[in-house]
Amino acid sequence: MSKLFVVGTGPGAAALVTPRASSAISASSDLVAYGLYLDLLGAVCDGKTHHDLPLGEEIGRARLALDLAASGKTTALISSGDIGIYAMATLVFELLDQQLQGKETHPEWLDVDIEVIPGVSAMQAGASCVGAMLGHDFCTISLSDLLTPWETIDKRIHSAGEGDFVVSFYNPVSRKRDWQLNHARDVLLKYRPANTPVLLGRQLTREDEAITITTLDKLDAKDVDMFTLVSVGNSESKHIVNGSKEWIYTPRGYSKKL
Amino acid sequence: MSKLFVVGTGPGAAALVTPRASSAISASSDLVAYGLYLDLLGAVCDGKTHHDLPLGEEIGRARLALDLAASGKTTALISSGDIGIYAMATLVFELLDQQLQGKETHPEWLDVDIEVIPGVSAMQAGASCVGAMLGHDFCTISLSDLLTPWETIDKRIHSAGEGDFVVSFYNPVSRKRDWQLNHARDVLLKYRPANTPVLLGRQLTREDEAITITTLDKLDAKDVDMFTLVSVGNSESKHIVNGSKEWIYTPRGYSKKL
Repeated sequence: MSKLFVVGTGPGAAALVTPRASSAISASSDLVAYGLYLDLLGAVCDGKTHHDLPLGEEIGRARLALDLAASGKTTALISSGDIGIYAMATLVFELLDQQLQGKETHPEWLDVDIEVIPGVSAMQAGASCVGAMLGHDFCTISLSDLLTPWETIDKRIHSAGEGDFVVSFYNPVSRKRDWQLNHARDVLLKYRPANTPVLLGRQLTREDEAITITTLDKLDAKDVDMFTLVSVGNSESKHIVNGSKEWIYTPRGYSKKL
Repeated sequence: MSKLFVVGTGPGAAALVTPRASSAISASSDLVAYGLYLDLLGAVCDGKTHHDLPLGEEIGRARLALDLAASGKTTALISSGDIGIYAMATLVFELLDQQLQGKETHPEWLDVDIEVIPGVSAMQAGASCVGAMLGHDFCTISLSDLLTPWETIDKRIHSAGEGDFVVSFYNPVSRKRDWQLNHARDVLLKYRPANTPVLLGRQLTREDEAITITTLDKLDAKDVDMFTLVSVGNSESKHIVNGSKEWIYTPRGYSKKL
């Protein structure tokens, strides 16, 4: 049976690529991914046929992966982070669903054996880098309104505020999108203190990693780019300083029992 | 400098333990963890001093790990999943914070070099197992009211409903706690359809893994135990069937562009 691996390779560092992800890539003849991801992966990608497509061609990339696998080539569709979180995996199943509904003309896709392999997501890399920011209930919100109506996103930011979730913003800004993050900050400021700790994690676990710890009132879209994860603590998250080392943690409440 | 690794080893399968987690365990002389986790890890734990403590002794476990590291032993505090998500990492920082505030008498803890290593969490193992359930905005809620007031948890369930987040419930039931999950179901049913897909993932990625796909109206605490992750789709999540294979995915909205 033809095989498609849908593989998340973690935030960037080779040491966070799971053995299951590496094995899947090794077993594949064809890789569908941004060139940048493959550069990060290194030698495991040598000797494979590499299929790249321009940024923005997400649907084309998912189609290509299904087509290659259906043609008999063991294929890995790869993205960084967890491919199931704001990434390519869901597109493969959207296409499969379209085919099942007869809206596509690729019955051969239905014979592909699909295996999704999770990976460490940016919010986890960021949280661990500064301590334990995701120690209690949290949510993720993508600020991209390319596919989701802004009203839906705005409502989610309010819900995250009301529920006092730690919030990780994915796609916080883009070249054409710069005001949403500041709006999100203003919404959250209605629900939690101005000095709530905020993490800006840029290029997490990669060579040019940059970690900034700030507070909610000082969060500003101008300090954030497409490669930055923004995580905002809940009302109980704490920023502590031990000599030259700074940490953020979100307590589960054990200190009441200490 | 004395070293404490705070290590998440993923949901269970050895193939999902990151190389960074394995290296940290290899580099340690002392391991603080439940025996079960070490059994899953296998040979990498051979020849190490293993410190176990009864279930429920979370604070004691974090203290022991800090004490061992402070005494000069390279130590790994280990839990399954992501140790930063509802697990031991936040306890280490709660203790450190207490020391910084002078409420503990262990200044030697402040000299420990702490490194937190993230891992694949249960929600990710579950989502990938059934396809791409976390394809859009999601949240996690622990239903344990041991340390969090029930009012806070209840409010978060309502917020998750209002915001239409995919919801993963951690600690969904325990021996003494059986009604909260059904309450959560009833709350979510006010906000999303009765046929919203639900995943029950028991012992994910382990030998006795059991996956059940059901719907929100049929979710019942009696079908869930302490080893089960419960993930509830958002109002757009879809359950699709392709021959003998079933999937759940949460669309990002690309199908409008297909």
